[in-house]
Amino acid sequence: MSQISNDMKSLRTVEWKNNKVIMIDQTKLPNELTFVEYDDFNQVAIAIKTLVVRGAPAIGVSGAFGMALAVLQSEAKNKDDLINDLKKAKEILFATRPTAVNLGWGLEKIMTIAQTGNSIDEIKELVISTAKQMAEEDIEINKTMGKNGSVLFDDNDTIMTHCNAGALATVAYGTALGVIRATKESGKNVKVIATETRPIQQGSRLTAFELKHDGFDVSLIPDTAVGYSMANGLVNKVVVGADRIVKTGHVFNKIGTYQVATMAKQHGIPFYVAAPLSTIDLESKAEDVIIEMRKGTEVTGVGDTKTAPDNINVINPAFDMTPPELIAGIITEKGVAQPPFEESIEKLFEANK
Amino acid sequence: MSQISNDMKSLRTVEWKNNKVIMIDQTKLPNELTFVEYDDFNQVAIAIKTLVVRGAPAIGVSGAFGMALAVLQSEAKNKDDLINDLKKAKEILFATRPTAVNLGWGLEKIMTIAQTGNSIDEIKELVISTAKQMAEEDIEINKTMGKNGSVLFDDNDTIMTHCNAGALATVAYGTALGVIRATKESGKNVKVIATETRPIQQGSRLTAFELKHDGFDVSLIPDTAVGYSMANGLVNKVVVGADRIVKTGHVFNKIGTYQVATMAKQHGIPFYVAAPLSTIDLESKAEDVIIEMRKGTEVTGVGDTKTAPDNINVINPAFDMTPPELIAGIITEKGVAQPPFEESIEKLFEANK
Repeated sequence: MSQISNDMKSLRTVEWKNNKVIMIDQTKLPNELTFVEYDDFNQVAIAIKTLVVRGAPAIGVSGAFGMALAVLQSEAKNKDDLINDLKKAKEILFATRPTAVNLGWGLEKIMTIAQTGNSIDEIKELVISTAKQMAEEDIEINKTMGKNGSVLFDDNDTIMTHCNAGALATVAYGTALGVIRATKESGKNVKVIATETRPIQQGSRLTAFELKHDGFDVSLIPDTAVGYSMANGLVNKVVVGADRIVKTGHVFNKIGTYQVATMAKQHGIPFYVAAPLSTIDLESKAEDVIIEMRKGTEVTGVGDTKTAPDNINVINPAFDMTPPELIAGIITEKGVAQPPFEESIEKLFEANK
Repeated sequence: MSQISNDMKSLRTVEWKNNKVIMIDQTKLPNELTFVEYDDFNQVAIAIKTLVVRGAPAIGVSGAFGMALAVLQSEAKNKDDLINDLKKAKEILFATRPTAVNLGWGLEKIMTIAQTGNSIDEIKELVISTAKQMAEEDIEINKTMGKNGSVLFDDNDTIMTHCNAGALATVAYGTALGVIRATKESGKNVKVIATETRPIQQGSRLTAFELKHDGFDVSLIPDTAVGYSMANGLVNKVVVGADRIVKTGHVFNKIGTYQVATMAKQHGIPFYVAAPLSTIDLESKAEDVIIEMRKGTEVTGVGDTKTAPDNINVINPAFDMTPPELIAGIITEKGVAQPPFEESIEKLFEANK
C-alpha cells in the first residue's frame, strides 16, 4: 500500500489502475484528500471494514476489485486451484460487512463469471474485465439517473440533501448528488443545502466536502435547522439517496430522512429519492425490514471530545423509514416513479426486462 | 474570576454570594462540574455571550446580578451618575443575547427599581436585594409551574425534551425539566428522551447530565432520530422550554424545536411548552422577532475535531418559531394556557394582576 496526497485529483472513489486498486481514504475527509493504493485483496478487505470506502454501490465495486487482485495474487497452476483461491478471497471480503447487499452481489457476480472460464488466463481476464465493467456501469447508471432526475429541478433552485449519496458513496458521480450534478450540467444554476447528518456527519464531512471540491454553492446546516430553512423559504426541493426501497414505495435511508420528508411535505416542498433499481427490494415488506442499531459512542462524542455524561443510555438507529405519501418521486436509471408507487415501480421493472 | 471545582455541589446555576456572582461553567459540562466567580459585570456579559450561562430565565437573573455588580463597581458620587453607570452596564449586558426576552426583562426590572432610590446607598441596597429576590422567585415560579404541568403527564409516560430547559437553564429546578421533576415528585414513574440538540449539544451535555445527576431514567438520541422515536412508539409526550412566546402563542425556542413539534403533531403526541410569564412578550408580533444567527464554527467542528471542509458556508440560526397550531398547552406559574392561545394567554395575565 502506498499513499498519494493530491488535492487536485477528481473524486473517483474507487478505481482500477495498473493492476492495483486506488481508493479515496474517506476516514481522512474532510481534512485531507488522500488516495490509497492496494495490490493485496486482504488490504481491500481491511479498507471496507475500517470505512476507508463506504456507500453501498462503492463497496460492491470494491469487493469486485478485491477479487481482481486475488486472481492476480493466486499462484495456482490449474483452474480448480484458482477457483478455490477465489472462494477463499470472497469469504474474507464478504466477512467485512456481512449485511451489505451490494457487497454480496458484487462478489457473487465475479465468482459466477470466474466459473465460466476454461483456463487460468481466461479466468484472470474475465474477472478483471468484469470488475472494471461493473465500475463503469455504476457511473453510467448514475449519469442516466442524473439526467432523468434533472428535469424535475428548476433554474435557481436551492436543493436540500441529507447524508451523502454522492460520488463518495458510489464509484463516481453519485445518486442524489448525481441528480444535482446533472441539473447543473444541463445549464441550470442550483445551490445546495447539506444537513450535517449526525451522528456520523456524512453531510458535513463528505457531502459539503464533495460539493465544495467540485465547485458547487453549498451551505451546511445542523440537522436541527431543517424546519427553519424550509419555513424561511431557503429550500425549493429535496433529494436524498436510499439504502433500500420496497415495492410499496417505503424508503429506508439514513436516520433523519423521515423528518426531512415530513418537514418538506408541511411546506409543500417536493421530496425526491434517487436510487438505482438494484436498491429496490421487491421481496420484503416495509414492516419486515430490520433497522440496524449502532453503538452509543457515535452519539456521545465526536473525535476525542466527549459530549455526553458517562454510561448514558443511547438510542442510535442507523436508518428510518419514509412512507410513500411524503415522496414526490423516485428517480432511477429507468425513469422517475411517481405515486402511486406500487404501480409505477412495477412499470420500471417491466421496462427493464 | 476564580474557579471552584466540586462534583458534589447541587445544581444551582447562578447565585449571589459575598457580593459576587457564582455560576456553573456550562461550557465545561458534562466533563467537569466547575463553578466560576465574578466581581465585574463585564465578566458576566462575557459569560452570557460565551454560554457559560444560558437558558432564558438563567440569563434574566444573571443580567440582574450583573447590574448588582455594576452598582457595587460604580464610583459615582451622586444618584444621577450612578443611574448613568447602570444604564451603561445595562447596554453592555443587553447586547449579549438579543432573542431571549428574559434578559431585557431582568435588566429593565433592575433599572426601574434603581430609579426609585433616593440615595446612592438606597439604590445599591434596592438593586442587590431585588436581584437576589428575582433569583428566589425564579425557583418558586419553576416549582409552581412544575406542579401546574405535572397533571398533564401520566404514570409510565416517556417524555421527549429538546435542548436544556432544566435547572441549568434557570436558577434551579427548571421549566420543562421542572415539570418533569414535579411529575416524578407527584409519584408518577416517567422516563425521558433527550435530543442531542446540535450544534451546541445542550441536550447531551446538559439535559442528559442534569437528569442523570438527579437520578432520572434518561436516554439520549441524535436530533435525526426524533421521527424514528415517535414513529416507533417510544414517546408519549413532549415538553420544551421557550426563549420567547408572543401573545398569539408562537413560540421561539432552540433551533430544532419546530421540527420536534411537527413530528409530534404528525404522530398525535401532545407537545407542551413550559415557561414563566416573564417569557411571554405581549408587545411583539411573531414576524417581528429577530432570530439570532450564530457563528459557523459551532457547526463545522466539535472540540478540536474538524467535521467540515474549510471555508464552508454555514446557516446557523439559534432559534426557530413553532406556530400555535402545533402546541397542546403552554404551562406557566399561573396555570396552563390552552388553544386558542390569544385568549388563554390574556387570561393568565389578568389572573396575574
